[in-house]
Order: sequence, then C-alpha cells, then structure tokens
Amino acid sequence: MTGTVDLVLDRTWAYGPGITHGGFLLQTLAAAAVTEAHPDPVAVSAHFLSAPRLGAAQVVVEALRTGRSTSTTRTQLVQGGRTCLDAVVTSGRLPETSEPTYMDGAPPVLPPFQDCRRNGPAPGHERNGITEQLDIRLDPAASAWLGERSNRAEVRGWLRATDGSDAYALSLVCLADALPPVTFSLGLRGWVPTVQLTVHVRARPAPGWIRAVQRAVLVQGGWLDEQCELWDARGALVAQASQLAMYRA
Amino acid sequence: MTGTVDLVLDRTWAYGPGITHGGFLLQTLAAAAVTEAHPDPVAVSAHFLSAPRLGAAQVVVEALRTGRSTSTTRTQLVQGGRTCLDAVVTSGRLPETSEPTYMDGAPPVLPPFQDCRRNGPAPGHERNGITEQLDIRLDPAASAWLGERSNRAEVRGWLRATDGSDAYALSLVCLADALPPVTFSLGLRGWVPTVQLTVHVRARPAPGWIRAVQRAVLVQGGWLDEQCELWDARGALVAQASQLAMYRA
Repeated sequence: MTGTVDLVLDRTWAYGPGITHGGFLLQTLAAAAVTEAHPDPVAVSAHFLSAPRLGAAQVVVEALRTGRSTSTTRTQLVQGGRTCLDAVVTSGRLPETSEPTYMDGAPPVLPPFQDCRRNGPAPGHERNGITEQLDIRLDPAASAWLGERSNRAEVRGWLRATDGSDAYALSLVCLADALPPVTFSLGLRGWVPTVQLTVHVRARPAPGWIRAVQRAVLVQGGWLDEQCELWDARGALVAQASQLAMYRA
Repeated sequence: MTGTVDLVLDRTWAYGPGITHGGFLLQTLAAAAVTEAHPDPVAVSAHFLSAPRLGAAQVVVEALRTGRSTSTTRTQLVQGGRTCLDAVVTSGRLPETSEPTYMDGAPPVLPPFQDCRRNGPAPGHERNGITEQLDIRLDPAASAWLGERSNRAEVRGWLRATDGSDAYALSLVCLADALPPVTFSLGLRGWVPTVQLTVHVRARPAPGWIRAVQRAVLVQGGWLDEQCELWDARGALVAQASQLAMYRA
C-alpha cells in the first residue's frame, strides 16, 4: 500500500511533557506497513529524528518492493511537514509454531511476576502512558536504581498489556522498547533518547506473559547500545532488538 | 545533501554470478550520506530488496534531518528504476578515543593471524571479490565447515583490507558483513541472503587488524539472525551489527 494515514497523538501513550512512547509510534508505523498477504513485521528498522508533539500527525506509507514471501515498505511519521520518525518494514508471514534448527540462548531467569516490582511513573511525574498501557513487572535484582546502583547495565522483567490481552507479532515491536533504560542501573538518571532501533520478530508469541531482558554492551562518550530479547510463555525467542541511544553523563 | 550519484558496479567486489558484496554496497551508500560536519556513520540500517546486476546504477540521497550533533539521510541504490537497497544513515562525529563508562564484553580470543586460515572463493567458484579485497583470516576452531560441521553457529577471525590499509569508520560498515555465514558451521551450505542489516559504529578504529566475531542466536524456519562485533587493535569495540537473513534448510 502507498498512501497517507491521518492520526492523532493523544495522551494515552504519553509521558513527561507530552512525549509519546517510541515503541508505540513504531508499532503504529509497522501496522500501517503490513498487508493481508504479509501480516507480520519481520524486520523493522527505525531512526528517531525528533519527538512529535501531541496532536495531529500523518503516517506516510510507500511500498518499496512487493515480493512473494516478503514485502518492504517505507513509513514515516510526519507532523507539520517535519519527519519525526522514519521506519522501513520488511513484512512476511511468520509460522504459528516452529522448532529451532539451532538455539544459543535461554529466557531470562525471573522471579514469579507477583514478586516483581510493577513499573510506574518516574519520581516527580504524575503519570506515564507506557506504564498505564503496559504491565511491566521488573526483577528487583536488576532494577536496583530506586535504591542503589547495580553494577550491570541490565534490566529484565515480565511484560503484558494492562488490559490482559495477549501479545501478537505487531505488539512485540512496541514491547521491544518497553523496559526502562539500562542506564538507570548504572546510576545515570537522565533521559535516554533512542536514535536508532531495529526489531527482528522471530515468531508469533504464545498467549501469556512476555519475558524481556535488555542489556548494554558499551556505554561510552554519550552513546550506548541496548540489546533486547523477548521470550514467550512457551520459552520461545519471539523478538530481538538492538538500539543505539544517547545519554548525558 | 540531497541528489543522485551515478556509479558502475564492476567485478571488483563481485562473487558467484555477478553478485556484488552487500557490505560494500552498504559502505557505498553510507559514504554518500556522510558530510563534512558529520563524517562518521553512527547508525546504518538497511533492507536488501533485490541484488543489483553488474553495470550502471544510481545512489539516490535524501536528507531527512540535519541537526547539530547528528544528521539522518536516506539513501537508495537504484538500478533500472528498481530499488535494490534502501539504507537510512544517522551520521555524526565519533571521538578519536574514549574511555568506556561501562563495558560488558571482550574481544574474541583468536590464534595469531598467521595461524588462521585465509578465506578464499567457495569451492567450484573461480574468484570472489570479497576475499580479493579483504584479507579474512578465520579461526580454524570456528570454521570447521571445510572439514566437518561445528556445533556452534559462530565464525570469527581477523579482518583487514588486502592492500594493507587500515580500517576507518566507513569501512567498518563493510567489515560488519565480511565474515562467511554462520550457517556454514552448522553444515547448511546454501546461499544466505541478507534481508536486513543494522550497523552501529561505536568508535573510530585504531590502526591494525580488526578482530571480528559473528554468532547466531536462533536459526529457525528459514530465518536466522547474525550478531557481529568488530574490535580494533587496542581492544576497543568499534562496531556492532545485527542482521536477519534467510537460508534454505
């Protein structure tokens, strides 16, 4: 499909001074890119150019290639003539179930979600659309920043929509950006704007909670990476994400 | 910069039936995107739509945002009206040296490069532009496919330009796609076309050989990921890459 979709950014997914959650924006763009023949976002790569304001915006969709097994589509979130977010989406059809030919990993080990800490608005903030829309239960052992700093740039926990609905291939694009920044674990408390985020969706998730883990390899000179994995209730790796973000030391 | 650059794809970087190396194509697009103010490709995300033929092609460059510390540019390799490769590049200026605030990793442990196996054309192929342009010395312990299959989807080795010139920020984009597919280590010998590749360049490399390691986490249902790290001679992590590729079982 090529065309333009109008939308309104309201407070539902907003936090702080009217900043809309980047993962929600990216899911919105991916949803505009997928088609009946290729309903699943297999690879989504995005560059965040500027934060849109609340209010009217457009999603501009341009088909780049329509193939038999995959299609590639460019999407942009535009507001007032300015591109806020550019995302290219390769979509396809993921199998319902599949047996790994090879797997070198395992789901994060988490306490039962009843024993995890539900993530809420940051101190001093009245509300946070992300933590209203998503039930994010953080492993206390990896989210020590409310007490003292941890020695590892890692955050992990359980994720699910607050309304209890199950994750699906498109919503994994949002969930891949749902954990708090790993810099919090290092005692760096500033805003961590995403510059670039790529999500690879590997399978349709089974019903139930998603287990998520996010780690940095290198925090240096104002830039950090965040490597994220999402695992479903049957223990399958359903999405991998890699992002480059900025921080203030 | 916005505009079009003409180029000719010759046999220099080609292999097999006239397929040009994807990493070289991506470096070419990134080179068209960077500017004097923002000379380093910090985040490059690409979707490979169709393999271009040898011959004339165009690079179409469109500035998306020009900021103070970074700029974002869209580039496309177009041939005969068809987009072969779409890449968005966020460029900036990387420091010459920087001390990590946090590092959770280490360079791959490799035998001395004299004891590694120089990668050459695949059996039955006369030549391979990649292995002509790049001196790729593979760790025999992780490239057992010429003898028997390994039990890990991992390839690692030393990389450098054949002419002895040192790597630089732009050439890391090419080197991040230079190792043979990790599927070879699993006994899967078919072509492994890249669907999506994202490279994050973290630092300008020091002179000398680059140490590279590439691993898959999940090989499943015709899709695999490849996670690549490039480390320079002083032991700094200089680039991270993540790709989604297809294979035939």
